Amino acid sequence: MSERRALFLGRFQPYHQGHHQMIKKIAAQVDELIIAVGSAQWSHTPRDPFTAGERIMMITRALAELPLTKYVLPVEDIERNSLYVAHIRTLTPPFSLVYSNNPLVTRLFAEAQIPVQALPFVERERFWGTNIRQLMIAGDDQWRRYVPPVVAQLIDQIDGIARLQQIHQTDHLERKS
Amino acid sequence: MSERRALFLGRFQPYHQGHHQMIKKIAAQVDELIIAVGSAQWSHTPRDPFTAGERIMMITRALAELPLTKYVLPVEDIERNSLYVAHIRTLTPPFSLVYSNNPLVTRLFAEAQIPVQALPFVERERFWGTNIRQLMIAGDDQWRRYVPPVVAQLIDQIDGIARLQQIHQTDHLERKS
Amino acid sequence: MSERRALFLGRFQPYHQGHHQMIKKIAAQVDELIIAVGSAQWSHTPRDPFTAGERIMMITRALAELPLTKYVLPVEDIERNSLYVAHIRTLTPPFSLVYSNNPLVTRLFAEAQIPVQALPFVERERFWGTNIRQLMIAGDDQWRRYVPPVVAQLIDQIDGIARLQQIHQTDHLERKS
Amino acid sequence: MSERRALFLGRFQPYHQGHHQMIKKIAAQVDELIIAVGSAQWSHTPRDPFTAGERIMMITRALAELPLTKYVLPVEDIERNSLYVAHIRTLTPPFSLVYSNNPLVTRLFAEAQIPVQALPFVERERFWGTNIRQLMIAGDDQWRRYVPPVVAQLIDQIDGIARLQQIHQTDHLERKS
Amino acid sequence: MSERRALFLGRFQPYHQGHHQMIKKIAAQVDELIIAVGSAQWSHTPRDPFTAGERIMMITRALAELPLTKYVLPVEDIERNSLYVAHIRTLTPPFSLVYSNNPLVTRLFAEAQIPVQALPFVERERFWGTNIRQLMIAGDDQWRRYVPPVVAQLIDQIDGIARLQQIHQTDHLERKS
Amino acid sequence: MSERRALFLGRFQPYHQGHHQMIKKIAAQVDELIIAVGSAQWSHTPRDPFTAGERIMMITRALAELPLTKYVLPVEDIERNSLYVAHIRTLTPPFSLVYSNNPLVTRLFAEAQIPVQALPFVERERFWGTNIRQLMIAGDDQWRRYVPPVVAQLIDQIDGIARLQQIHQTDHLERKS
Repeated sequence: MSERRALFLGRFQPYHQGHHQMIKKIAAQVDELIIAVGSAQWSHTPRDPFTAGERIMMITRALAELPLTKYVLPVEDIERNSLYVAHIRTLTPPFSLVYSNNPLVTRLFAEAQIPVQALPFVERERFWGTNIRQLMIAGDDQWRRYVPPVVAQLIDQIDGIARLQQIHQTDHLERKS
Repeated sequence: MSERRALFLGRFQPYHQGHHQMIKKIAAQVDELIIAVGSAQWSHTPRDPFTAGERIMMITRALAELPLTKYVLPVEDIERNSLYVAHIRTLTPPFSLVYSNNPLVTRLFAEAQIPVQALPFVERERFWGTNIRQLMIAGDDQWRRYVPPVVAQLIDQIDGIARLQQIHQTDHLERKS
Repeated sequence: MSERRALFLGRFQPYHQGHHQMIKKIAAQVDELIIAVGSAQWSHTPRDPFTAGERIMMITRALAELPLTKYVLPVEDIERNSLYVAHIRTLTPPFSLVYSNNPLVTRLFAEAQIPVQALPFVERERFWGTNIRQLMIAGDDQWRRYVPPVVAQLIDQIDGIARLQQIHQTDHLERKS
Repeated sequence: MSERRALFLGRFQPYHQGHHQMIKKIAAQVDELIIAVGSAQWSHTPRDPFTAGERIMMITRALAELPLTKYVLPVEDIERNSLYVAHIRTLTPPFSLVYSNNPLVTRLFAEAQIPVQALPFVERERFWGTNIRQLMIAGDDQWRRYVPPVVAQLIDQIDGIARLQQIHQTDHLERKS
Repeated sequence: MSERRALFLGRFQPYHQGHHQMIKKIAAQVDELIIAVGSAQWSHTPRDPFTAGERIMMITRALAELPLTKYVLPVEDIERNSLYVAHIRTLTPPFSLVYSNNPLVTRLFAEAQIPVQALPFVERERFWGTNIRQLMIAGDDQWRRYVPPVVAQLIDQIDGIARLQQIHQTDHLERKS
Repeated sequence: MSERRALFLGRFQPYHQGHHQMIKKIAAQVDELIIAVGSAQWSHTPRDPFTAGERIMMITRALAELPLTKYVLPVEDIERNSLYVAHIRTLTPPFSLVYSNNPLVTRLFAEAQIPVQALPFVERERFWGTNIRQLMIAGDDQWRRYVPPVVAQLIDQIDGIARLQQIHQTDHLERKS
């Protein structure tokens, strides 16, 4: 297996232009790319509104034209940091490089002797999931500028904005049940 | 199954007059009522002091005279919102209507094509679990006014006030272990 | 809590005349009865065809006329025998007696200092779940004789015989996938 | 979402010519295909020797030339048949058709109102996972004829035959620990 | 089993002089001591940096000279307070006394009829895990004064300070993924 | 950490002379020994009658005189072979050698680059857990010859023979519930 195969981790709530630009830069440096959709078990919360299946579809469509073998895979959280690397490896093809800026992820892969490379620079302030979800909740159509057009279209098809707006109200009321 | 069977969800920590008034109103509109005791796995915390079994007993006793078929059932939390409706359905008899004011619950059942009806109005400020538990912690006997008499009697029998007062102290000390 | 409250455990796949006769005998000896529907998480297998909700409905209907406070509760299996008694106790009202013929159940409650009484005699050969499910699979209507009439009616309503017959075929084919 | 998107379920231990022929036939009838790699958590057993990641790689490589959008996704077993359909749906893009010959799978999707179509005919006797694994254990190179060439190559790269032969011995000895 | 065997519970992140002094005092009062290493599944977080195995090694080395039979055992958290006592008991030799100042632990063992004794006094302000971890993060070598020398040596061997400093950064950044 | 620290895995149902002889031989070759008590969550079954705590106590007592640092630790089964090595490592001090004859264990550690050494020879036929449990069930006191005397004494103290004999009957009856 002499291919250069790398791992890119994210929650992709939603898949946005920040992810998209980074992945296009990474694509130039590897033969195959594994995109792990983390926190796969979560959906329908203000922080994680979309299901793993919906996020996988966003990514697959947005990257359809990228000439690279991609593996877009759901990865559930595991409540044991010390098993995280083994958990990822059993769900994915073998990889020799991880792209991440997250200090915990960096530490865990480093302790397992797997090299981690910092992500290529993108403007974090604009392309940031929390920001985009807040625009969605506020009913501000600006969110469409921050995601690839096929992602916006898919979010419309699954009625994603209404879902996020409705479940967001739970934050304020749930303590009253 | 032509009965009109509805689902009512709550944590019932404890079962109080707010629940009781709502259920008596709902009872007039349905043939059978499923009362799902949520977060069934939790007990002995300041927010969830009573076990599922204790809560089921409170409800069963308080509703003993209500001329309606009732199913009072424990339902554990499931850490996947997208499985929540299927989880509830496998533990309960089939139902065609859900009573809830919770936005997340409303969304999840709506996505599964099950109608949700808002709860009949009751005074939320007084009949509210958090409030009642705070009176219990403070040693203020006013809490007795907010629960059906058989519930107060049962809480006395299980030494519930002492339990809540003792475990409440954990909040302040646990970070020191 | 001076009531005499007992626990009766079973899988109830389905609830049949053997259970029914035993429960009617027990009812004469106690004030309240907890009926724990075990293996609650299982359904749609040849050994456990019915969901917990369906089984709870069978029991509730069959015992509607029995003048006794009943708690009919789902209890999921726990993969640790040493936690089983604590698991049951947290899901149920307190009880002072268990009815069981199962040696493991008897041992576990005895080690926890809870008395266990042998079940009143019924003809085991005829009233036995495995037997009844085999008649159902064979398409032999004799199964109707072994369950209370309201249970037979409910099994018809949920299309239970067709379900059992279809999933039963998995036994023979699943190794071929 | 007017695409015709179908679901194909399997364990793929390993991905073989039987799967391959069926998928090529199905590909002609749909726009997009979801291939769910079941029992994803299992590996290193005589029945499930390969990890989910290894199986995903087999399928992705074998289908690289098939001009169709494919989603090749790991799906862990869930110990509750009644949650299985919801579990699959949250991990996958929405689908309107399932291909399966398994009676339990057929029943579960049918109860959820999702149509199931029987698999196109292939010679089961030859293309059957159990058979192929037995050849591998016996050291008989005939197994190579029953899998796509890229799959055979990948199994060699991961030293798959030696792994299966070694863990197979556990069957005979494990009771002696 | 006439030995006086006691249980001491802690997270030991890390094992420090506060624990050490208390255990030496308790040792004078019992025949055998069980030291339960709680939250055993956690590691690599700012609050729980060390694995269970690392913590067990710290304790075993620090107490090597204490002339007492010790059982140093990992205990994972269980998300059900009502099962906690049974969970502890199945993993440990039988004990007749618990040492704890934690109100929840005290309550749970008291409800199970097991006596709980308050911990012997030590200066809490100085010997407190949170404090020691903050010194480690700040790069202040004072932490060495608060742990037994063999513990400091072990933390150096596993590169523990660098690990804690690196994962600590996740707190500030993780919301940006 | 220049100590030679080895791992020895077993279920120890019960700890017998076969284990004891092997461990004494291994002890001569290492500085520290980790004894992992596998299937720690199981007890009260014919194959796994004793709790983890009981087994840990057997081993600790039997090895009390062996002049070696020992770590006797419960390890629960993990339903994912591919995570097994990481699971063991997080619960134990670091080790550089594993003693095992089990082919699966050998394979898993070998894939993780950890050397595995075959167990020193002992007479398997006589010293074999299954055999010893069958003698116990049959009421044949010969079992006492196959375990260290302190283990026999402990089994008597916990009423272990009566427990095993009682739960053993479940095998024959459980299908009748």
